[in-house]
Order: sequence, then structure tokens, then C-alpha cells
Amino acid sequence: MNDSGTGTFQANGDGDVGIVSYKDYFCPTPLEFELGGRLDSFNVRYETYGRLNSEKSNAILVCHALTGDHHCAGVYSIMDKKSGWWNNIIGPKKPLDTEKYFVICSNCIGGCRGTTGPASINPATGERYNLTFPAITMRDMVAVQRRLLAHLEIEKLHMVIGGSMGGMQALQWAIDYPEMVERVCALATTSRQNAQAIAFNEVGRSAIMQDPVWNNGNYELARIPSVGLGIARMMAHITYLSDKGLEGKFGREHSAIDGTKIFKPSFDIESYLHHQGQSFVNRFDANTYLYFTRALDLFDLRGKYGSLENAFKDVSARVLCVGFTSDWLFPPEQNREIVRALLRCKKTASYAEIKSDLGHDSFLIHSPKLYTLIENFLDV
Amino acid sequence: MNDSGTGTFQANGDGDVGIVSYKDYFCPTPLEFELGGRLDSFNVRYETYGRLNSEKSNAILVCHALTGDHHCAGVYSIMDKKSGWWNNIIGPKKPLDTEKYFVICSNCIGGCRGTTGPASINPATGERYNLTFPAITMRDMVAVQRRLLAHLEIEKLHMVIGGSMGGMQALQWAIDYPEMVERVCALATTSRQNAQAIAFNEVGRSAIMQDPVWNNGNYELARIPSVGLGIARMMAHITYLSDKGLEGKFGREHSAIDGTKIFKPSFDIESYLHHQGQSFVNRFDANTYLYFTRALDLFDLRGKYGSLENAFKDVSARVLCVGFTSDWLFPPEQNREIVRALLRCKKTASYAEIKSDLGHDSFLIHSPKLYTLIENFLDV
Repeated sequence: MNDSGTGTFQANGDGDVGIVSYKDYFCPTPLEFELGGRLDSFNVRYETYGRLNSEKSNAILVCHALTGDHHCAGVYSIMDKKSGWWNNIIGPKKPLDTEKYFVICSNCIGGCRGTTGPASINPATGERYNLTFPAITMRDMVAVQRRLLAHLEIEKLHMVIGGSMGGMQALQWAIDYPEMVERVCALATTSRQNAQAIAFNEVGRSAIMQDPVWNNGNYELARIPSVGLGIARMMAHITYLSDKGLEGKFGREHSAIDGTKIFKPSFDIESYLHHQGQSFVNRFDANTYLYFTRALDLFDLRGKYGSLENAFKDVSARVLCVGFTSDWLFPPEQNREIVRALLRCKKTASYAEIKSDLGHDSFLIHSPKLYTLIENFLDV
Repeated sequence: MNDSGTGTFQANGDGDVGIVSYKDYFCPTPLEFELGGRLDSFNVRYETYGRLNSEKSNAILVCHALTGDHHCAGVYSIMDKKSGWWNNIIGPKKPLDTEKYFVICSNCIGGCRGTTGPASINPATGERYNLTFPAITMRDMVAVQRRLLAHLEIEKLHMVIGGSMGGMQALQWAIDYPEMVERVCALATTSRQNAQAIAFNEVGRSAIMQDPVWNNGNYELARIPSVGLGIARMMAHITYLSDKGLEGKFGREHSAIDGTKIFKPSFDIESYLHHQGQSFVNRFDANTYLYFTRALDLFDLRGKYGSLENAFKDVSARVLCVGFTSDWLFPPEQNREIVRALLRCKKTASYAEIKSDLGHDSFLIHSPKLYTLIENFLDV
């Protein structure tokens, strides 16, 4: 279904949004954070694809996951080999059809890809915020997206969609701004970060924070805690995949085992992980990783509102949650539980489960079943 | 069933082996390693419980897992609050009944608890072996245990038993010395380390080897790569437990969240993991961790012998494999597969599965079902 359609700008073939560029929204109004602290002003970097219709009724907000950003579709130049992270889903005639919808995606507050975050300069001090940046929650991320929409003069969202941390934001949208959200599509997510997920995050944070280069967050950007951040990413990457997926892709394939160089990475899976770690270190800020993983850990709708039913009591959006069978980070049951609670509150919600061996990252990967689910959901 | 019986030495109550002490066997005969390299001589530290009968037919060899050692039962003094790691299973009237059996357990070659390993002094140089220590395989571990048994003048083992890496050794025993082994009990193990397990090990090794203190293995014992080793252990510890087990034990219990100290471990699971990491660093050598995890990665009976059937063709031992439902490091299916292959070879083998929420470590934990399985298996 992704091979047809025509975009206005085409760089990567039919069906792609083509060459895109980001925009910056500078918000001069102070932002108070949920857990305390404030920013007097901040920047939000975002991209949009498609055109807002005259009724302003066709906007879709995409929320990114832990290590994502605002660049979710298209390319920045004809030389750019890498499309945005959700290019398979966004574009002409794709599930988020840019001929019909106005798709918006912004880098979350606290991020490191243009939106104000720990690595940004605090105008009050002329220094980087680093750990003086306020603690971030999903509610803060969503509040900043709300500011962006106000700037864009959008008062209704046809849909908010996201996977993993993006799914948490989508749920938070339905809770915090029920009057604005018509549909929520939350993929591979949870209403409550559990002990195992907190545990993995804490190991990653410990690797970063014990890296001597980290220096209590005050590292030079020219010399980052790449060892700690790389370890954190390598480990986390395992949790995004699945036992079966890794077995199918890598198995025990290895180069010759040399008894005198026994600790040299010889297995394909080892080289792959090192590559993942290294490329991540080159694109992501260690302090943002700390803040975002902590925002994940703090996400617990049941704990915060007393019960899921109470959390969802004012939701007016239709909700679609999708779980993926091999996702062991936010397993199907955690997605199903969201829908069950919504149904107990007499909300309009449905749960779908997609069989996949690709683990948590399944939501990012080509999946005609997911495309059909989203297309149908957009039409109801 | 552990509350009855009388031991000769009693320190921790009825049914315990009481006060024990280790012994050292110095082997002056060179040892050639499977992947190359040799030791001219080596030490094996071991413990025994119970008495060898006059027919020398009642010996049980216990093989330890990655971070275990020879001290699997009893205490070293009446002040010693911590019993050996398998004290629940070894002792008078316990499944490995020391009134009936002579139980032997040795620290594996390459270990750090008394048996010659990377932290030992190479007599030829007067320096620690560190990374000049030969690469280790399960076959090497078993060959050293074989030497110890020769020293003890034992030619038959009533049973070899072990979980996880200990289970790999037990299988290797049945393959390498079929004439010596009457029973093999392999728990929570695999015939083939898969990609996900290799991946986790490689992250742990990377944390150690990228710790600047590690210094290519040549750290001072007074200043060890505790950051890397601690991270490795924290991560690995998650893989020894289970999502459900962690949820039941820790859930999201936390102290007050302070927005200004957001990265301070606040969740109980975080404090627990840090405690696990710290106590491990105090008792385990980082280089041994590298060697043992690599031995795990290299374990692949199918790859080595062409097929599991070929690996098992000369096995004469009865084999019992036990999988634990929530073990996601070496899941039930990997244990079942061993028995299936043995049965295809017309060997006497059985598989049992124990329902447990405690993950991979279930084999170490009080389990009347496991006790009954082992007791029945010893009697056939």
C-alpha cells in the first residue's frame, strides 16, 4: 500500500513526503513543571507534513518515543539517505495520509534535537542547564505540545498517536485535554511503568552517571560520557527486540573464535549492539536520556489518579491500543489493560494485538496489519 | 522436608551440614585448554559433605553457575550468617542427602574463589595471569573436575547436578565422560547459548572492559573496575528474575519523589539492584566474569557436534532436565529441547517443568516440587 500516491515533494519515491525542513517555535511564556521548576521561555522544534484544512479539523499529532525526535517523515535533502523515523506510516496514501491530514511532530521538552533541554543554554546564566533542568513528566511533555498547537491555532486533534513513550503522551493528552482530542492511538505502551522496566532504566542511568566523564551532568559537549551512554543504549536495545527476533536475525553467527582474543566481539549480535551503541552516542545527549527515562519511570496513571478508571473518567477520545505479541518491555497485557479500564468507564476503546517476532520495536516496522488498523480507526 | 534429620555438625539447625571447611587440591600435571593455552599446574578449591561409602558409589558432583563457587552448603563458623548457595538442597534428609551421599563441589577453573583463575599468580612470571589466562570452555571446567575426582579416587558419579552454567557442565560431563556418570540433573539451562543471552553478556563485558580502571585486565586488586562490574551485575540480575516476580516483590514502591533530586534511586527496585551490584563487586573478580560469560557464549552443543543427537550419542547417564516457567534467560523450551534430543537418541531422559514466578533463579530457591523431583530421580 506504500507504493502508490503522489507527494508534492518527492525524493524517496512515490508515497513519501519528500524533502522536509523543521521549524522552531519560540515560546516566551514561562512553563511551570509538574514536579517543580520552571523555564522562563523555551523553544520547540517541530515538523509538519500535509496541509491544515480550513476547518482546522485534520490535524494529527505524532508523539515520539524515548530516543525519537520531531523528524518522523521525509528527508532533509536529496542526499539524505535516512528518512524520518516513521516514514513508513506518514506520507501520501500512507496510513497517516498527508493528502488528507496535517501531521505534526515535535521534539519533546527536555530533548536534545532542537527543543529546549538539558544541553540548551539557560538564558539566565549563559550556561547549559544540565541537571538544573526541571524534572520532566509526560504531563509536561504534553503541556508543551499544547503550547505548540495554540501557536498553530489548532484546537482539535483528529488523532494523537504514538508508540512506547509516545503512547504514554497520547494517553496523557486524552486525560489532560479531553476537549481537544478526538482519537488516541497508543501503540506498544503502558499505563504504568513496572518494576522490570524501571530496573533496566536504572541500570542505563547508572552506566551514564558512573561514567567519570559525565561529571554530574556537566560534561563538555566535545567530550561526552560516551561509554556510559553506549552501554545504556546497548542494553536498552536488547529490550526493544525479542529473543526470537534476535535468534532469527543473528542466531549464533560468528567469525572465527580465536582463543587468544577471546573477548573480541566475534558474534554478529555483538557487532550489531556495538554499532547501535556507537551510533546512538553520536546523536543523543546523555542528560536527555536521564530525564526521559525518568519520565518513563514516573508514568503511572493508576498511582497518580488512584485508579485507571479515575484517570480516564473525563476522556472523550476514542482510543485504540495496539499490543505486539513479542513485546516484553510493554507486553500485550499492559496495552489490553488500558482498554479494559476505558471500557469499564464506558468509553469507546478497542484493543488489537499484532503477531510479531520483532519485540517492542514492532510498532516502528513495516506492518500492513498496523496500517489497516490505523486507517480504519481514522475513518470511524 | 528440610526441618528434620540430624547432621554431624550442626550450626544452623537440624538438616544442615553445619560447619564446613574448604580443601585445596594442587594438581601438578599440566592442563591443555580446549581453545589453546595451558597451565603447568593449578589449584582446585572444593568442599565435600557427607561420607564416601566403601564402594565409592555415592558421590554427587554439584556444578556451580556463573557467579557461584565451591561453597554450596553449611557455614564456615558459628558466626557465619550466610550458608552455602545451595544449602536448601544439600544436607541430612535434604534432596542431596548427606547421610546417604558424598557431595562434592569445586570452584571452576578460571574462578576467583580459590581455584586458579585470572587473578592467580602465574608461577612462571610471578605476575597475575589476568588476560594471559587461557580461554575457558565448559569442557575445560569439566576436565578439571575430572582431575579432582581422580585425586579423590572416584570413578563413578551417582549424579552430576547443576543449574544454568552448572547445567551446561552437567551435560558436558555426560558427553565427555559417559562411563563415569550415572545421572545428570540439569536445571534452568540450555544446550546452546542464544543471541539474546550472548547480547546481555556482551553488554556486561563491555561495561567492564570500558571501565578505565579495568586497564586491559591489569587492574590492581586494591582498585578494581567496580563501576563496570557493578553495572554488569545489575543488568544480569534483572535477567535472573522475572517481570512478574519483580512486580510482586517491588512493584512501584518508592520513597518520596523529589523533583530536585530526580535521579536519586527512589524506587525499591533501584535500591535493590544497587545493593546487588555493590555486594557482587566485593566478592567477584572482573576478569573471571569475562572468562565465565565467554564460556557461556561459546556453549553450543549443536554447533560443536553437528547436531544434538550427535553430541549425545555416547551418553549413558539418565538425564533429568527441569525448566521453570518464568525463566526467560534459559526458557523451558530450551530445557525441553535437550530431553527431546536425548529421547530421539533412545536415551533415558525426562523433562519436568516447574511453575514459578521467580525467573531463572528459581532453581536456587526453596521449591518442594524440585526437591521431590530430585529425590525421585536419585532413587531410580
